[in-house]
Formats: sequence, structure tokens, C-alpha cells
Amino acid sequence: MSAAPAASAVPAGVDPDAPAPSAVSNRPDVNREAHSFSRAQLEALMTKRFFYIQAFEIYGGVGGLYDYGPTGAALQANIINQWRNHFIIEEEMLELDTTIMTLADVLKTSGHVDKFADWMCKDVKNGDIFRADHLVEGVLEARLEGDKVARGAAVAVEAVPAEDAKKSKKKKVKTAAVKLEDAVVEEYTTILAQIDNFDGKQLGELIKKYDIRAPESGNEVSQPIEFNLMFESSIGPTGQVKGYLRPETAQGHFVNFQRLLEFNNGRVPFASAQIGKSFRNEISPRAGLLRVREFTMAEIEHFVDPEDKSHERFDEVRDIALPLLPKDVQESGKTDITTKTIGDAVASGMVDNQTLGYFLGRIYLFLTKIGIDPKRLRFRQHMGNEMAHYASDCWDAEIHTSYGWIECVGCADRSAYDLTVHSRKTKKDLVVQKAHREPKVYDRLVAEVVKKTIGPRFKKDAKMVEEAILEMDQKALADLQSQLKNGKAELKICTGQTFELTPDVVSVEMKTIRETVREFTPNVIEPSFGIGRIFYSLLEHSFWARAEDVDRGVLSLPPLVAPIKALIVPISSNEKLAPLVKQVSRKLRSAGVASRVDDSSATIGRRYARNDELGTPFACTLDFASLSKGTMTLRERDTTAQRIGPIDQVIEVIRRLCDGSLTWEGACKELPEYSGQQDVDE
Amino acid sequence: MSAAPAASAVPAGVDPDAPAPSAVSNRPDVNREAHSFSRAQLEALMTKRFFYIQAFEIYGGVGGLYDYGPTGAALQANIINQWRNHFIIEEEMLELDTTIMTLADVLKTSGHVDKFADWMCKDVKNGDIFRADHLVEGVLEARLEGDKVARGAAVAVEAVPAEDAKKSKKKKVKTAAVKLEDAVVEEYTTILAQIDNFDGKQLGELIKKYDIRAPESGNEVSQPIEFNLMFESSIGPTGQVKGYLRPETAQGHFVNFQRLLEFNNGRVPFASAQIGKSFRNEISPRAGLLRVREFTMAEIEHFVDPEDKSHERFDEVRDIALPLLPKDVQESGKTDITTKTIGDAVASGMVDNQTLGYFLGRIYLFLTKIGIDPKRLRFRQHMGNEMAHYASDCWDAEIHTSYGWIECVGCADRSAYDLTVHSRKTKKDLVVQKAHREPKVYDRLVAEVVKKTIGPRFKKDAKMVEEAILEMDQKALADLQSQLKNGKAELKICTGQTFELTPDVVSVEMKTIRETVREFTPNVIEPSFGIGRIFYSLLEHSFWARAEDVDRGVLSLPPLVAPIKALIVPISSNEKLAPLVKQVSRKLRSAGVASRVDDSSATIGRRYARNDELGTPFACTLDFASLSKGTMTLRERDTTAQRIGPIDQVIEVIRRLCDGSLTWEGACKELPEYSGQQDVDE
Repeated sequence: MSAAPAASAVPAGVDPDAPAPSAVSNRPDVNREAHSFSRAQLEALMTKRFFYIQAFEIYGGVGGLYDYGPTGAALQANIINQWRNHFIIEEEMLELDTTIMTLADVLKTSGHVDKFADWMCKDVKNGDIFRADHLVEGVLEARLEGDKVARGAAVAVEAVPAEDAKKSKKKKVKTAAVKLEDAVVEEYTTILAQIDNFDGKQLGELIKKYDIRAPESGNEVSQPIEFNLMFESSIGPTGQVKGYLRPETAQGHFVNFQRLLEFNNGRVPFASAQIGKSFRNEISPRAGLLRVREFTMAEIEHFVDPEDKSHERFDEVRDIALPLLPKDVQESGKTDITTKTIGDAVASGMVDNQTLGYFLGRIYLFLTKIGIDPKRLRFRQHMGNEMAHYASDCWDAEIHTSYGWIECVGCADRSAYDLTVHSRKTKKDLVVQKAHREPKVYDRLVAEVVKKTIGPRFKKDAKMVEEAILEMDQKALADLQSQLKNGKAELKICTGQTFELTPDVVSVEMKTIRETVREFTPNVIEPSFGIGRIFYSLLEHSFWARAEDVDRGVLSLPPLVAPIKALIVPISSNEKLAPLVKQVSRKLRSAGVASRVDDSSATIGRRYARNDELGTPFACTLDFASLSKGTMTLRERDTTAQRIGPIDQVIEVIRRLCDGSLTWEGACKELPEYSGQQDVDE
Repeated sequence: MSAAPAASAVPAGVDPDAPAPSAVSNRPDVNREAHSFSRAQLEALMTKRFFYIQAFEIYGGVGGLYDYGPTGAALQANIINQWRNHFIIEEEMLELDTTIMTLADVLKTSGHVDKFADWMCKDVKNGDIFRADHLVEGVLEARLEGDKVARGAAVAVEAVPAEDAKKSKKKKVKTAAVKLEDAVVEEYTTILAQIDNFDGKQLGELIKKYDIRAPESGNEVSQPIEFNLMFESSIGPTGQVKGYLRPETAQGHFVNFQRLLEFNNGRVPFASAQIGKSFRNEISPRAGLLRVREFTMAEIEHFVDPEDKSHERFDEVRDIALPLLPKDVQESGKTDITTKTIGDAVASGMVDNQTLGYFLGRIYLFLTKIGIDPKRLRFRQHMGNEMAHYASDCWDAEIHTSYGWIECVGCADRSAYDLTVHSRKTKKDLVVQKAHREPKVYDRLVAEVVKKTIGPRFKKDAKMVEEAILEMDQKALADLQSQLKNGKAELKICTGQTFELTPDVVSVEMKTIRETVREFTPNVIEPSFGIGRIFYSLLEHSFWARAEDVDRGVLSLPPLVAPIKALIVPISSNEKLAPLVKQVSRKLRSAGVASRVDDSSATIGRRYARNDELGTPFACTLDFASLSKGTMTLRERDTTAQRIGPIDQVIEVIRRLCDGSLTWEGACKELPEYSGQQDVDE
């Protein structure tokens, strides 16, 4: 695969935090006019053509749960398939399929039981529940809007039909035209810009300070309390084994690390990968597919020597220019994009290491290959306070949608954190042994405990004492050695107890160590993909309408991921065409091209339009010339251009268009233009 | 695809219920000697080569949860991929991806909340929990064994190593040598043969009657109580919306029926399909992958007109001969297989209808294509008392393993049950409208309610009265009409209340109806595949050992599903071979052949043996002749035969062997035999 061209900066004037109800799509490879994007129109199409729908619709629906219909499921399967080829196959990763139901102990160790939570507060009178940050945000935004109205400014109203607004889970707070002090406007604006950074206590203070109340009832709300976002259940009939639905697939990799390492003949680096469902019990899901309770993830855990994070194939991505938003720019309050090659970004230290840089490049290639607009893609580095304490660097691939910039892929260097905590908890070694080229020889203080005397001396505490001695570092050992020379030493352990040590119990000596093997806990670089978010962003980037038919949408999905690649359209329902339709359908299938027949009685224009809505890139039209001359016309969705050729040649052209080995321009060189009318009659 | 050859009957002397620790594999397409199967050896290989492992191993493991490693995940992905091609693509089914987390109301309607349960009982003193049928079975089996010992018979001991027995979740009950009365032996044997048919009350009676106690403690156990097998959780923060992890994917199809029908332009028949995880919280999981708490299913719901269950493509399967075990044979206490073509089975009424028969044939083709031994496969019909009350016919595809015959695919005609109950509960129409070719004209009694008078007369009961009238059948209407002629009629409704009707409130008249459209609830034919069970059975059927190396296993997985298709083996670690290894690896990848390099320092024989354990069908060996003459040898796993040819030709042969367009015999005609030694030195 060749490197993609450099992306230019994001569209000027795009505010990353503001909701953007209208976005202009300008995909360079598609011959289409700039158009104004309507989310309501896209959503209506999604329902009509059954891409996806709220789950349990006939039961009234459940927030944050979505079912994918035939078109959506096929699009998702194609994205996943491309992902598997691009990452797992291409890089020989070790694929895993681990359980969704996860032992509580594992998630206790990983920190999820204690920390994977959002803040919520309750209406003190009617018990309604709000996510605290959403509540503060909604109320302050409404007050700012009311202030604008009071000041007489024209307020932009989102062009969302009433029905659509009703369905939206984001409860709009009613606006009252009340003018605010200038200083208050500034305070509110500052708070809104940092809304993701407040903890529960701070949110509670804001609620108190600004008298924020439940929007509908006007009642006071409680102080924010933590709500863990994991779905909880019990495993087995006793109720004593607690389990959670996994909030990410990553832990399944870590607990199997030693097996994976063995499978890889004990060598690092290697990567494991997993595609599967994860779950987060959101307090109040909103923004459609972007914040849901059940979602498909694809995660890679790349295990690497902490002393050598170079990457064998770094040269393949070195010259790709990426749109980067580094942390220092953000910390100075700006959002300007820097375009830099990956090579430069790593060399300058902006990106921490080669392996991390390699994956940023591979992520960029994957996203643009499946159809994400490179001009609406950026890599944003986490700021210091945003990153987990153990991470050494983290970049999110963010995609611009009508909801603003959305985190779709996270790419973090998690250091040795996960393997270390699981190893400590289970007392199992999760380490790599690597032979030194030359044995390392050095001197080192070593403590030796005399088993025969330590037991009787310290009785039940003996084991604890021994462990405390063995955990001492060189400085502590030097100190112990010098004390023992005086006949006794004092040992203070973590419980606070103090023990007296004597030379008959323990000795400390300088020894020469000959180390042939280095043992280390590998670091983990984790690219983690939210497939549903990528799926939705791709739909927004692909959706437009023709100037001559603004009410009907077109989904310009690339052939690589389009749910159906070719539509077969018999010009009429005349039975003489039926055998040919079957034959073409069979031939496309054996060429590996997913096709569908539309032999309905609708006009051919209507059938093409339906095709455009389904995102099908090609249509094969069979008419009476097909019977007499063996030809077939080929319509391309984005340009609506039609070409003609012998049936088998057209099929071969479609096959190559779909596997990416031929462009439409190339196809036009092989097949002449079709200008005539379809032969409707015999 | 051509029809598979007729399968012969199951191996003589196989008792379907007895555990079969040793099974003889005789796959006709593989040149191997009969060997005795060792489950312990297979399981050891599964762990060693990381096919699968108990989940959370380093935390001590959790029963009934398994993680698939790189080899297992790839084998599973290949099986699923074949399934998708064979069913979804080939038959143009509508694929769905619906949520795992399921609204409790949906599963209440489907009957799962009330009925999806097993019986469990508790040790009254220590609280240990047992699945009631397993407990009765274990204790009675142990007593029968003790009786045999007491009678001096040699008791067969399963050849399972101690460690293996310890891991097994089926707690072996200790045997005491106590002789039983002959009549008691017969009673126990009869009970064991019917163990699956007892309900909780009956199991409770058996426990009482035979003084069955907790095996380890000897304590009494409680009466059996129901334990629902669904994992329960709460959706959202209030705790008021209850959800379950789905126990099957089927309900996700039914609740989306109207959307699917619309997508299919309102026409039946059509089928939806879904592949995904389901969950059952087993009381005491056992038998490895065969009874687990989390598993992958693939389900088809084929919606069909109840008045026309013919199938368009029935001719394609009509002549396939299936090994059938019909219900009447079982009801007479026998297990003899009848081999019959699907055409005959449907014509004779043994299989209820063409569509059901069509799927039995397609299931047979699928299972044998991926490598299930046709001689160890049978279709068993459900007996009357075994089938759900609404089902009209049901056949299980059962595969013979060392655990006996295992249900791997269910294929049921569920009639209109599911759509009817969801429609009734949600008051949404889940029906198909089909135009009559000719309008149907007939006479019919019709009741007309006078809105103006019925309201004031019956006040709050008016609606109920009106509904009761509108639900009357022709007989009831005739009766009402004749009563009204006498000036008044009595209406008794389901609540037990009685109302007096008069002609000013309701009239009944004979009318001529002209019906252009028939409205009906479609019936559902449901083939439902347990992918994990098929996966495990396939491993048993593929596993054997060479007579000359009995300690090492060979997995004869067909190339179609093998995790890795080709191993690349450089004859030595000489650097001159390295570029060629990379080149061959790249060429195989672009031919779509999953390959792996083994450049370890192990001897070539050891590397081949490792390859056999991984189920890799082909090995390409590169030596110094490859550099000088451009040749490569090709080793076939099952025969260990080696052929030779130019590198590109060998790669093309492998490609065709893997996609099924070439057999090994065919390959041997294209590539000459290789008899020499590999060129180890330059």
C-alpha cells in the first residue's frame, strides 16, 4: 500500500467544542457540489434503509442500545474485515477472542471497579437522575443563550424537525431571556470550555455556586455521587462470584500474556488483537451511535521492550504527513493543527517513540482507506492532566462530525502498568526473558537469610521478615551490612513493626553477578478503535444530496466497504430477461462481488436513486441489447456516468474496482461511454 | 456446490447415551490408520498450542468461560466465514447485528423469564449447590458401578490422567462396593435413560425415594428449586430498567420483523441471519466447550407463508441422503438410523415440509464441508414431549464425540409463536399482506356497534363491551343475531361480567366481503448453530496420531478452515535465505493464503511436527536449491508426501488447494514427487 497524500489543516473556523449542525463536505475524489449537511436527513435515511435503529423499537426503545439492520451490519462487517486485513493479517498479529463476562477481581486489579465511573446527581424531590457534567453544561448553555436573546442578538436555531428533537436524548434546557453581567458570561464560557476536567467535588461546587437545578422540575439536585459505568452480574448460582461485562477488550489480552508470549516463542515485540463487544452503562446516552451502552471495539496490544521502542517497519510510514494537535498548543489555549511527517514528529520528540508513531501512521492509512475525509481527521495529544498517571504518551485520532471533533481511536503508550498490577495481584510472572549478547558482569550486595535460625527466632513473623529483607534495595542493604558489623541491626517493615536482626540470622555480602538474561516487564502500546464511532463518522462524511434532487441522499461509500457493491437492474419485468439476471448475479458472486437484484416495477431512475441511498457504488443494467448483443451498461453512483461493454468484461472491471486495483478513471479507459437510451422494448 | 455423497449409518455398537472415552476415526479422505482417541491428549494439545483455555487462568479460572487463543480464534473465524458464505451470501439472507443486552420485557414475552431455568438443590448444611438432574444421575451411576464391583465384574476405568480428572467439572461420585437387588438395578437403569425428561417435582421425588444426598458431605439436599439461566443486570442508573444478556440471538430478529419485511419490499419468504455471542448462566458447567456460559451462535430465522412451505431451491438438496433418527423409532426405545434422501423424507411426511427439509440438507453440506465426519453425524427428530408446544417439527443435527452424541444444530419449525406473542404484547402488527391473484368473494356475518348509544349505556365498560363484540366468531355472531331478533341479548365477557345488548346498540348483518389481500403472521423455520460445539467436535474428528509418533498429535483440519494454511520453513538460519523467505511470505499473502514462518533453530522434523499440531495443511520448504534453481518443496500434512516445483507454481497450487478448486491428488499430477534431501548447505 502506498502512503496517502499529506492532509491539509482542518476547515478554517471550525470550533472543536461547538456543536456543528451543518458541515461542508468536500471530498476531493468525489465530483460533487458543496452541500449543507442535515443530520436529520441522514438519520431518516438510516432508518428508512435499515442501517440501524434504536433497539427494542416496538417495545418503546432503550437509550444507548442500537440494532444494525442488513445494510448497517454489512457495512460494519466490511469495516471490520478491512481492519482485520490492515492490522492483523498484514502485521501477523495474534488474534484473540476472550470472554465478555469478566471476573470482578480482574477489573478490581485493573482499577475499573474503583475508578471507571461518572458523576451523577438526583433531583431531590422527584428522583430524576442527571449526569452532573451534562447538567451543568446544559443549564449554563441555556443561560448564555437567554442572555443573547435578552441582548437582542439573533439566536441560531438548529434545523432539527420537532420529531427528531423529541427523540434526542439530550434534554434541551428551556431558555429564558435573562441578561447576565458581562463578567458572568465570561465565567460561564470559561467553565464550559473546561467542562470535561471537573471532578465530582468541583461539579458539586459549581452546582451550589450557580444554583443549578433540575431543568424541568426546578428542584434542587443532590451533590454528585459516583456511578460505576460497568454492567454488573453474578456468575453461577451462588451469587458469590461477581462479574462485570467488560468495558474494553484489553484485560483479556493482559491476563493471557504469558500464553501469548509462549506462543510467540518467548520473543517480543509482538502484538495481540481482538475485535468484540464491550459495554458501558452510560447514565444518559446521547448523540446517537457516538455514546452507547454496547459497542464493538477493535483493540491491539503491542508488547515491546521498554528499552527499545523502535519499530522494524517504521520506514514505511516515516514520510506520511499527519495533522497533529500537540499538547503544548492546547495548553496555550489554541487548537491549531501542525502538519508534520511522522518521521519528524518522532525525531523532534513530539511523539514519544517509533512504535507509537508507526501506529499513528497505520491508523491514518486505515481511516482514509475506508473513506474518512482526511481533511476532517486530526491526531490530538492528551494533555498532562488528561492522561492516566502511568501512560507515557497518548494520541487520539479525532474525526470531525456534526457533533464536533469525536475521539474514534485512542493510541496510548500504557507503559508496564497493566502487566505489573496483574502480576502483583496473582503472583504470576508476566515477564520476558531476553538473552544478553554478552553476559553482564557486575558486583552487587546480596542478603542471605539463615533458614535454620530465622524461623525459631521470629516464629509467625519469620516469613514477613524474610520477605522484607529480600525486597531491600542496594542502599538499604549497605545500611544493613554496616549495622550488622556492629552485631545487630534494626528492621522496620511496612506494618510499622520493628525487628532486631543479628548476624546469625542474616548476612550481607558483595557478590559478583554474571547476568546472561535480562528479565523485564514489557511495555504496551495500545491502539484502540471504536468501530461504531468510525462507522457513524464515515456515514456523515459520505452523505450528500444532488443539487437537482436535494430531498434524496447519496451515500458515497467507497467500494471497499459499501454493503452491496453492485445492483443488477433489469430494464423491465419481461420474463426473457430473467435468466440473464440470474446468470449475471451468479457471475458476480463467483467474482466475489456482493450484489443485489432490483426487479421491482419502479422506474429505472427511482431504482438508481434507491441504490444511491444504499451506498451501492455500481449498477449493472440489463436490457434487450444485453440479450441480442451480450452487452451491459455500468453506472457509477457518484458521477452517474454510464459506460458499456461485453457482460464478462464489465464484471471483471467491477471486480477490480471493488478490490481497489482499478480506479473509475481507469475503468473509463477500458469501457466506452454509453449515451443511448436503454432498450426497454424487444 | 455438488451434493455430498450419501452417509452410511453410524458406527455399529455406539450407544448414544454412554460416555465414549475412545472413538475410532476413519475419515475416508485421510490416509491414516485407525487410532484410539485420547481426550486428555487433545486437551493438552489445545492448551499447548493455545487453541483455547479456561478464562482468567492466572486468577484461578472461572467454570464455563473460555478464551480462544490465536489458533482457536482463527479456526473459529474461518468456520464463521464459511458459515456466512454458505448461508448468508449464497442465499441472500439479511444479516443483523442486534444487542446482547436485552430488555427484560422482551424476554418476559418470549417466555424466557418464566421458563428458561434448570432445577438446582442445596446441601442443607453447607450450602453447596448441585444441578438436580446431574446429582441424581451421578449418585445412581455410582451405585450401579458399586453394584458391579460387588458382583465381581471388572469395571472399566476411564483412561483419564489424574490431573485431567481433577480439572473436570463433573464431580465424580465415590463408588462403594454395595450389591443391589436386581429389580433396583433395573429401576436405576430406567431412570438414567430418561434423566432429561424429569421436572423439578419428579426429581424431588427421586431424591426422596432413593435417599440421594450430597456426595461429598453426605448431607441431605433441599427440594429442587428453579434457577433461571439468564445473566441479569440493570440498564441505566436508576435500577428500574431490568435487562438480561440474551440467551439466544433469535429475539433480536423477531422484534425487528417489521423493519426486515419492509426492507424486503413486503414479501415473504425471506431469511434473516445473525452471528453473535449469547449467554447462559449454567449451574455447574462441564464437558469443556460443550456446556459453557458464554458462546457464539449463528442463527437463521426463515419467515414463510404458513400455507406454502415449499422451497424454491429444494431440488438442489432433494437427492442428498441423510442419516435420520425419527421420533417413532426413539419412542419405541431404539436408536437405529434410517438413511433416506431429503426428497423421500419430505414426501413421506417424516420431515414436515420442504423448507425444513431444505435446511437439513444445507446443514449437512455445511458440516461435512468444514470437516465433520459424515459417519459421526445424524439428524435426530424431537419426540412429542420434547418439543415446545408451538413447534410443528424439530430436528437436531447431532455430532458424535467422546462425550456421546452432541446437539450442535437445532432446526425447528416454530410456527407463528414468536411473532404472535410479541405482536400481542406490543399491539404492533407483525404480519404480511399478500395480494390474492383473484379477489376472494364470500358472505360473512358482521357486527356493527352504534357508537352514539354504546357509550352512554355502558360508560366505563363501553370499550370492553365493544371489543368483546368485535372479537366474536361467526358462530357467536349467529347466536347474537338470533337473540337480538327477540329484542335483547346477553353478553358474557372473559372477566365474568354480563351485559344486556339491545338492537339500538349493536346490529348483526350478513355482508358480502370482497377480499383482495390476505393478511397473515408468517411461520418461522429456525436453524440455530452452536459454533463452539461444532468447533470442538471438529477438533475431535480431526485429531489423531501417527503410528510412528503416538505422543504427538496431528490435526487434520481441512484447508478451508485451518487457522494457518501454509508454513514457510527455511532449511537453515543462513542469512542468504532470509530475503527469499520474505518474498514467499509476501507472495502467499497476496494470493490470500494465511501463512507463517518458522525460522526457529529446531530440526526440520520437529518443525513439521509442530506444524501438524497446529493443523497447518501445507509446508513450503526453502533450501539452497531454492536460491540456485528457484524451486520450493511442498509437504502435505496428512500423507507427509513432498512434491517440488518452481516457487510461483507451488504458490498457485496452494492457493487452489485452499479455495477448494484443487485436490491433493490433482496437485500431485501438477507437481513431481520430491525424493531428495533438502539442500542444507550452500
